[in-house]
Order: sequence, then structure tokens, then C-alpha cells
Amino acid sequence: MTRRGEARDPVADSSFITLPDVRESRSKVAEAVIHTPILPLRSSARAGVYGKCENLQNTGAFKIRGAYNKISRLPASCAGVVAYSSGNHGRAVATAARTRGLRACVVMYGNSSPDKVQALRSLGAELILDGSTSEALRVRAEREVRERGFMMVPPFNDPQIMAGQATLGLEILEDLPGVKAIVAAIGGGGLLGGLAAAVKESRPDVKVFGVQAEGAPGMLHSLLQGKVVTLEKAETVADGLRALRPGELTFAHVRRYVDDVITVSDAEILAATRALLFTDRMVVEPAGAAALAAIASERLPLPPGPVVAVLSGGNVDVRIILGSEDQTR
Amino acid sequence: MTRRGEARDPVADSSFITLPDVRESRSKVAEAVIHTPILPLRSSARAGVYGKCENLQNTGAFKIRGAYNKISRLPASCAGVVAYSSGNHGRAVATAARTRGLRACVVMYGNSSPDKVQALRSLGAELILDGSTSEALRVRAEREVRERGFMMVPPFNDPQIMAGQATLGLEILEDLPGVKAIVAAIGGGGLLGGLAAAVKESRPDVKVFGVQAEGAPGMLHSLLQGKVVTLEKAETVADGLRALRPGELTFAHVRRYVDDVITVSDAEILAATRALLFTDRMVVEPAGAAALAAIASERLPLPPGPVVAVLSGGNVDVRIILGSEDQTR
Repeated sequence: MTRRGEARDPVADSSFITLPDVRESRSKVAEAVIHTPILPLRSSARAGVYGKCENLQNTGAFKIRGAYNKISRLPASCAGVVAYSSGNHGRAVATAARTRGLRACVVMYGNSSPDKVQALRSLGAELILDGSTSEALRVRAEREVRERGFMMVPPFNDPQIMAGQATLGLEILEDLPGVKAIVAAIGGGGLLGGLAAAVKESRPDVKVFGVQAEGAPGMLHSLLQGKVVTLEKAETVADGLRALRPGELTFAHVRRYVDDVITVSDAEILAATRALLFTDRMVVEPAGAAALAAIASERLPLPPGPVVAVLSGGNVDVRIILGSEDQTR
Repeated sequence: MTRRGEARDPVADSSFITLPDVRESRSKVAEAVIHTPILPLRSSARAGVYGKCENLQNTGAFKIRGAYNKISRLPASCAGVVAYSSGNHGRAVATAARTRGLRACVVMYGNSSPDKVQALRSLGAELILDGSTSEALRVRAEREVRERGFMMVPPFNDPQIMAGQATLGLEILEDLPGVKAIVAAIGGGGLLGGLAAAVKESRPDVKVFGVQAEGAPGMLHSLLQGKVVTLEKAETVADGLRALRPGELTFAHVRRYVDDVITVSDAEILAATRALLFTDRMVVEPAGAAALAAIASERLPLPPGPVVAVLSGGNVDVRIILGSEDQTR
């Protein structure tokens, strides 16, 4: 990204999440969320690169932070929740709903893999496999909300979801106070938007960078045009990064707080995924390896000093990572 | 193990490591050792099973704790160090020696895998590939000590090595104060012996169990006979557990402090290794999965409440774990 549009914020100042919101969310989610470790990454050619290991998080991804934050605040009258998700958010919502004794209905892509389906079924969620784009899933989920009288737990464009994801930013600042830059991937922008707000409101000197897949640059295009734009398609090996458009709220946060956004190719993402598996001995999904891929690309204007890549999730079959070797080497 | 011999301790009381030793070692190793996380294991059928993730440790295994503790105390006159190791201890010694600016010579099995050899070379160690049993490695290593005037860093039978490994016990008690039992695998017994001493001297109410591979039950046989015995062979898929005999010192500690020792089969070890990879999404080597295999076997007399399996290392090629599927399913 070289330049941002100068249009006004699409949301009011009062809609931005605040540091007190994030701090309060942190105590709210503590009972369900693991304070994940920050580990030095041996696979990085650059010294001083650390991984914030959300691959080791409850449910295998950062999504439980936002989902639990939202669901733990629902009124007692709530009959159930609906989510639409390619996997991790659905898993997080199903898990959080179960701890609250709430029914959960998750709308997933029609062609979701059997192990993703099985993982959600075993959490007691009702599944609807219907749709091939994130927009189609959203439309179907909204129908379920109306027909059942359930409440929606949106995947990213929601202040409680964002404040929940942002809690990992406070953990990074606490555990590695010398950090100079934090890099995280962008699907819908809930993780990066929340994280950036929490970090910049605490430590404006820490750089925050966003990473998108080359084939799904919705946030980058929105930033360049100064308003939320919808892609015609979003194609990348990293299924967690396949959003067609960011939210108004996540866009506003990223625009205000993030220093820069770059894209990485699928080959770069897969190389980082393999490096994490073979050298750091951790199973990280492609979306979770994108931040490390961006650091490895040397296209980020990183300051000297410790850098943290948010390894956002680990829900992938390792056979797929191994299978990617022949294609991209 | 059903019964222990009643012979006297093979070492004097003054040879046992003490809690102050372990506490002092902990501050000594802090600069090189990661305070590794304790994570709930989703792969366990039993609730409340946690992994102490030494697979995420610096050098990929707990061995750096003992090696660094020993090497950081060597006199300034020390010209270099020698180690004999199937892999993890050698890697730890090479890493610790490099931080001290010392030369390191590592004696490994003649048929060591190319990636183990490469890993050690890249740490600047000189390698000697010679020998097919742990005893042969030891003899060759002692020759190098004599001829070069270097100092030996033994793999387990040494109070500083044991006190270093024991530091992970203090971390467990601190991070999970409600722990009721800790399970760790036994190769030479340095990890379990040190750990058990530190835990029992702090919290005698916490149970400590040891696990050996069925094909390499040197510590178990020694306990049953009341003295250190040497096996004729040690065969197991878990190369970290292939010791032919425990040390006098490790034997004495295990006999004094450990509640029970059981064995697990290679099939059980590999099943646990796969469960950790596919369900917990972590690369753990077979030796590191043995403790979880023992918990899964339900042959341990575990008390109700939280149990910690020490996942002692992660240095294995995931292709080997995947390759084990067809053979043992």
C-alpha cells in the first residue's frame, strides 16, 4: 500500500473500540481463552522474530477470543446463536455457546471438508452446509436469525468481536515489552483492526502491519480507494483469508491504526507454513502463516528489533501442508 | 512396577540434588531456556490432561536446561566440551557451548539421520559418527575427552544436568498449582529423576510417574532388582528412550522420589504421537509422546484432578509420524 484515500471515517468516533473495552474484555474471556506463548521462530532468517502462538489457542485459533467475548454478554433471554464461517469462527462460536448452554447454528460452505464438519458436530452445533461465497453464507445466516429468533455472532464486523480479538495485543505488549512491530493477517479485519487499536492506544511507538493474500486483497483495495469495496472473487490457499469485503468498522480501525498493508502470494504463504512445520515444529494453517510470509518477503518496512508474527490458527490437516511441497518448490 | 528392591541407595545422601540447587539452576538457565507453556490437550479422552510443552523449548527439547546449566558453570580454562547423544542432548550441548564460545565435539550413532547431522553442523559442532549403542558412544566420547583435554557433558547421570532438567518441574508447580500428578518418560532418567526430586521436595502430595518403552525398560528392571542393571538391547521407535542402563545417580533419585513406573508399547507411543499431531496440532517426537501414551493406556494409578504429561521434545520429521499410520492402525 502506498497511499490511503482521504475520505472521512465511515463510522463515528464513538464506534471505535477503546482500551478500557479491551481490558474489560480480557477479564471476560479469561476463563475460556489461553494466554498463548510468544516463542522465538527458528525458521526465520531475520533474527528476533517471534510467533504469537494462537495456533495453540483453545479451539486452535484466535477466534475464541471474540466469540466468547460476544456470547458471554448475550442476554439471558437469548434462545441461541447463529454464525457463518469457513471453520475457525464457527468452531469458536460453537464452543462458546456450549459453555453458556446455548444452541448454536453454523452456516458453512457447501463443500466444507469432512473433518471441519465433524469437528463442529462434535461440539454440538447444528450445521447448515449451503453457499460458496462469504456473502452467500451471510445471507443464509441472516435468514436463520430471522426464522429462529436466534442472535447473530458476526465473524468480524462487531465491536465486541474486535475487542475480544484485541486482547491478544495486550498479551504481546505484556510478554514482550521490547516489541517494535506486530504483523497480522487480514481476512475481514477483525483481528488486525482490534489488535491495532489496542496496541496503538497503549504503545503508539509499536508499528502494526497487515497482510493479505494476493488473491483476496479486499482491505488493501478499500484502503486505496478510501471506502469499503467488494471484490468479485477471493481466491487463496489460505481459507481464513477469503473474505470478499472488510466490514465498515474493521476498515475504519485498520485505516486509523495500521501502519501499512502488503500482500503475499500463495507460494510465499505455503513456504512459511512448511517452515513453521519443519523448522519450528508447529502446525500452523496457511492463514496463520501469512504474517511470517510477509516478514520473510522483506517487503515490510520493519524497524530494527523484536517483531511478532501473529500465528492466528493451526486448524489444518498436516497432509495438506506436505502435499503442497511438490507443487510450489 | 509392582515392587521395589530394598537394597541401600547406591549413592550417598549428599549426592541427591536439592531444591536450592534447582532454584539456583533456574536463574542460571533463564537466559537460554524458554519458560514453556502448559496447554490443555484436546487429544486426551481423559479430561484435565495438560502438556508441558518442551517440544516448544529452545533446541526443540528439554535437554537445553541441563546442558546449559552444566556448561555455564565450567571453568574459564575449559578448552571445549564433548557429548554423546542420539540427537537432542547433542543439539543442546552444541547450542550451549556456542553461547559460551566453547568448542563442542558430539559423538553420534554411525547411522544418524542426515537432518540430525545437518542440525548439529549448523550449530558449529564437530561431529564424530561412530557407534551403534549408547555404551559405544560413551566409550568413544571418553576417549575424545582424554585425547583433547575437553570436558564431558554427560547426558543424564550428573547432578548439574539433573538439576537443570528439574527446573521444568518448578515451572509446572508454579503455572498449574492444582496439579495432582506429573508423568514423564525415562531414557537415562535425568529428566524424571531431577523433576521428581524438585516436585516431591516442594509438594509431596503431587504424584510423579515414569514411563519407559516396552523394548527399553532399563530403569524399571533396575528398580525391580534394587540395583542398576544393563539391558542387552534397547529397541523402540522412540530414539530418545533407547538407553541400555540408567545412571547410579538417576536410579537413586527415581527410586527415592517416583511413585511408579510403567511401560508403553511402540504402537501406543505412535498413537499418542499422531493424536498430538492431528488433534493438538503439535509436532512431538515419539519419546515426547510416551507420557501421554501412558495416560491414555489407563494403566497408571492417576488421582482425580489435573495431570501433566511432559512432552519432552519435538525433533522429528513429521513425514515419519505420517508414515507410521499404515503400520500400526
